[in-house]
Amino acid sequence: MIKIGIVGYGNLGRGVECAVKHSPDMELVGVFTRRNPESVKTRTNIPVYGMNQLMEMQDAIDVLILCGGSAKDLPTQTVELSKYFHVVDSFDTHAKIPEHFTNVNMSSEASRHVSIISVGWDPGLFSLNRLYGQAILPHGKDYTFWGKGVSQGHSDAIRRIEGVKDARQYTIPVEEALESVRRGENPELTTRQKHLRECFVVANEGADLKKIEETICTMPHYFADYDTTVHFISEEELQRDHQGIPHGGVVLRSGSTGLDFENHHVIEYKLTLDSNPEFTSSVLVAYARAAYRMAKIGQYGCKTVFDIPPAFLHVETGEELRKKIL
Amino acid sequence: MIKIGIVGYGNLGRGVECAVKHSPDMELVGVFTRRNPESVKTRTNIPVYGMNQLMEMQDAIDVLILCGGSAKDLPTQTVELSKYFHVVDSFDTHAKIPEHFTNVNMSSEASRHVSIISVGWDPGLFSLNRLYGQAILPHGKDYTFWGKGVSQGHSDAIRRIEGVKDARQYTIPVEEALESVRRGENPELTTRQKHLRECFVVANEGADLKKIEETICTMPHYFADYDTTVHFISEEELQRDHQGIPHGGVVLRSGSTGLDFENHHVIEYKLTLDSNPEFTSSVLVAYARAAYRMAKIGQYGCKTVFDIPPAFLHVETGEELRKKIL
Repeated sequence: MIKIGIVGYGNLGRGVECAVKHSPDMELVGVFTRRNPESVKTRTNIPVYGMNQLMEMQDAIDVLILCGGSAKDLPTQTVELSKYFHVVDSFDTHAKIPEHFTNVNMSSEASRHVSIISVGWDPGLFSLNRLYGQAILPHGKDYTFWGKGVSQGHSDAIRRIEGVKDARQYTIPVEEALESVRRGENPELTTRQKHLRECFVVANEGADLKKIEETICTMPHYFADYDTTVHFISEEELQRDHQGIPHGGVVLRSGSTGLDFENHHVIEYKLTLDSNPEFTSSVLVAYARAAYRMAKIGQYGCKTVFDIPPAFLHVETGEELRKKIL
Repeated sequence: MIKIGIVGYGNLGRGVECAVKHSPDMELVGVFTRRNPESVKTRTNIPVYGMNQLMEMQDAIDVLILCGGSAKDLPTQTVELSKYFHVVDSFDTHAKIPEHFTNVNMSSEASRHVSIISVGWDPGLFSLNRLYGQAILPHGKDYTFWGKGVSQGHSDAIRRIEGVKDARQYTIPVEEALESVRRGENPELTTRQKHLRECFVVANEGADLKKIEETICTMPHYFADYDTTVHFISEEELQRDHQGIPHGGVVLRSGSTGLDFENHHVIEYKLTLDSNPEFTSSVLVAYARAAYRMAKIGQYGCKTVFDIPPAFLHVETGEELRKKIL
C-alpha cells in the first residue's frame, strides 16, 4: 500500500481524499493543515494534523500530495517539503513553471526525493496531448479551447465590482471556430473568435445594473476582448443553478504528412468534467503512484508529466497492461 | 542526426520515408528490401539495398524501422533484427502481443538493444489513451470506436467472393451510440450497435448481384453481426472515389469521482486521418527518436508505448517543452 498525505484541505484536498479512498493500492495517512486541526472535519474521517506535525511523520508517508494554491502556497511549499518527502503538486501558473521546476529540482535532487510538478489537466493532460500531437505531426498547428466551465478568476473579478453581491462566469468555446479546426481548415483565430464569456450576476438591491454590465464588458484583459453576455439573476437562482464547478476543453493538433504534405490529419483530445477540482485530484493521485514508483528505482529530482512513463500511472503491471489494453 | 534504416517498402515504408525527410534531427540511410533492389524506386531517391546488405551496415544505422506485416514478417523479423539493431515495429495482432514482447525482449536484452513494438494508433495512441483514462478514472468504462475508415481485411474478404472484381469496405461508428457515450450514459453496446459496414463492390459482367450481396451480409465474423450496406458501382467510380486509405476512430473513458461517485467525467480521444499508413508511419518515426534516446541512457530491452516517457518523442529539449507547451 502506498501511504499518502494530503497538505491543504480545500476543494482539491477533498477530491484527493475521495480518489485515494477508491484506489486499491493506496491508503490515506492524514490531512495536514495550517488551520486549527480540530476545526477541520474530513469527509471520510481520516485524521487531521497541524503542519507542525508533518516532520515527525516522515516514515509514515510515502508521497505527499500538495493541494495549496499556485500563487502563494506552492512556490515555497513544494520547494521546502521536497527536501523531506516525495511530492506531487498542481502548480498551474504557466509562465512561472520553468522557475518553479528549477527550484524544486534543486531541493529534491539534493535530498534524493522525487517531485512531480504541474500535474492536472492544464497544465497536465492537455500539455501531454500538445506534446504527443507535435511529436507525431511536426508539420501542423496546435489549438486549445477551454470550457464550457467556471472560471474562478473571472467570477472573482466580477464580484469586486461595486453593487455586485455574487457572480459566476462561464468560459465557452465558440462552436464555429472549433468546427473549423475539426475540419482541418487551420484557421487563424483571434481571442474573440475562440471563446465567449457568459456571466450570471446577483446585484445588490438598488444597484445600477446598466453600469455593472458596462463595467464587466469593458474590463481590460478579463472581458474587453471577448463577446460577453451578462444575466442578472436572484441569489436563489445562483444557489440553485450555478453551484457546480464544471469545466473541460479541447486540445487539437491539425497537421499534414506526405511528400508534399498532401494528407491531412486531426487529433482531438476532449475533456467534459462535472467537477474541475475532483478531476484534477484524480490526476494528482495517479501521478502520486508514479512518484512512488520513480522513487523505488531511484529516479530522483523534479519531473513533469512529460517525464513519466505512462505505465507508472496505472495500478496494474506492465504484463497485465500489454495483455488487456495495448 | 539520428540515422534511420527502413526495412520493407510498402505503404508504411513510403510513409516513414516522407516523415523522416521532414524530421530536422533525422536522416535516412536507405531502404532494405527482399525484392531485387534495382526494381524498387523510392519517392525521395534514397538508396535501396537488399536485405543481405543490412548486416554490413550496422555502424551506419542508429534505428531500424520495420515496415513488414504482422502476420508473417514481424514475428521473426523483429526478433532476429533486434539482435543487431535498435528497432521499432508496428506489430498489431493484439492477441499475440504478449508472446511477441517476450521473444523480442529476450533477443534485445541479451544483445543490449532497444526495441519498441506495437507502435501506431491501435495498438499505440489508442492504447495510451485507454491507459491514461483508466489510471485517472479507475471507476469507469472504456469505449473504442473505429472509423470512418477503410478496412483492408474486410475489403479482401469481399474480393474473394465469386463474381467480385474489386471492393472497398468502410467501417463506420454508429453516431447514436457515440453520442450516448459522450453524454456519460455508459451504455452496454452490442457489436451491431457500435459499428456499421458499408461496401462498394465492382462485380464482373453478368455476375449474380443478389447472391453477392447476400454472401457479404451473411458472412460470419466479418459482416453477419453488423448492419451492412452494399453498393454496386463501376470500376471507374471505385477508382475515382475510393482510392484513399482514410481511417480514424475514438477512444472514450467515461468515469466518476467523489465520495459516492456523484460527479461524472468523459475523456475523449479522436483521430481523423486522411491516410492510415502515413499517420502510422509518423508515430513510428517519433518512437524511433525515443528508441535512440532510450539506447543512449542504456534502457535496453523490449518496450511499448506504455514505457516511453513522452518527452523522448519530441525533438525539443525538456527545458524547451516545459517553457512552451506545459
